[in-house]
Amino acid sequence: MEYFPPALETLIEQFARLPGVGKKSAQRLAFFVLGLPDDDAQAFSDAILDAKKSISLCPVCCSFTEGEGLCPICASSKRDDATVCVVADPKDVAALERSREYIGRYHVLHGVISPMNHVGPDDLHIKELVERVATGNIAEVIMATNPTTEGEATAMYLSRLLKPFNVKVTRLAYGVPVGGQLEFADDATLTRALEGRREM
Amino acid sequence: MEYFPPALETLIEQFARLPGVGKKSAQRLAFFVLGLPDDDAQAFSDAILDAKKSISLCPVCCSFTEGEGLCPICASSKRDDATVCVVADPKDVAALERSREYIGRYHVLHGVISPMNHVGPDDLHIKELVERVATGNIAEVIMATNPTTEGEATAMYLSRLLKPFNVKVTRLAYGVPVGGQLEFADDATLTRALEGRREM
Repeated sequence: MEYFPPALETLIEQFARLPGVGKKSAQRLAFFVLGLPDDDAQAFSDAILDAKKSISLCPVCCSFTEGEGLCPICASSKRDDATVCVVADPKDVAALERSREYIGRYHVLHGVISPMNHVGPDDLHIKELVERVATGNIAEVIMATNPTTEGEATAMYLSRLLKPFNVKVTRLAYGVPVGGQLEFADDATLTRALEGRREM
Repeated sequence: MEYFPPALETLIEQFARLPGVGKKSAQRLAFFVLGLPDDDAQAFSDAILDAKKSISLCPVCCSFTEGEGLCPICASSKRDDATVCVVADPKDVAALERSREYIGRYHVLHGVISPMNHVGPDDLHIKELVERVATGNIAEVIMATNPTTEGEATAMYLSRLLKPFNVKVTRLAYGVPVGGQLEFADDATLTRALEGRREM
């Protein structure tokens, strides 16, 4: 037996399909939406369709962009064309931008190579990266995939792929995170931090 | 600076307004929705508006119902009219229904009395309960608010309120949860479990 009216059950099911949202959370979210003023519920509903309709991938870096144009970063004339930072996900662009350190361009793969999850090189935006490196005036490609096994493997694969183009390929530094505590750092991180030590 | 196109930022903000959803989760949910097939995104968007439009409160028990009619439980002829179980929230109805033990009717308060959160008796559907008890043929009212301080206080308040109507008011039993372990039960629960012990 259903305890809630069909329209409510449908809304709960829709929320339950979202990643990381279980049945209980979906109920809570659906009840919250029911309690919203009409305008707010309409705005939520519209935001889904608007984003879906107007967001596409930037033709240059494959990050999200509005409509058919370049993304804000590719469109900016203030960025350094000679450096491209390769990330797995659009949210990694946001993370790097927050550091306010990087002034080059980006390239978003939309995933990493993962045989376990049936993701191969052809499922990622690697072709677009190779084209950029082949035709553009790029001096350095920074591999900024996650420091996980799959992120490593993807960076390694790309660095081999880009070798023929005579471009400098670098990898983000490994080491102890700033503000962290040595006693909680894992062995692999400490090993990398020692290997990468620099004169003060 | 915004890292994502405005339509995407808007969608992220909409998700971030949901209870228990932080900025990071909101990003993940928004990206997930962007990755949905068009039909699925449309279905999600529609579900919000449909639920908002078609769901209202049952005129008898104040639980959720479709349109203006009775909720499925109030509409059922198989339930016992003489017993009303008072719960704080529609999801508590679902929880009790799952036990398949209860065959009476419900009354949903939509909250508990909570001076800390500025929720007084007038903010809850208490008036409707009193009317039901005053006019209906109700023999027993079971207080099934949560066994928290606020749930207790609300049950106590209601039992005093219903006293003049000469109706039996009962409270859910306290004790150790089935399948739980004594060593992890708190003192108050163990005290209540001892007080409420029954002959085997």
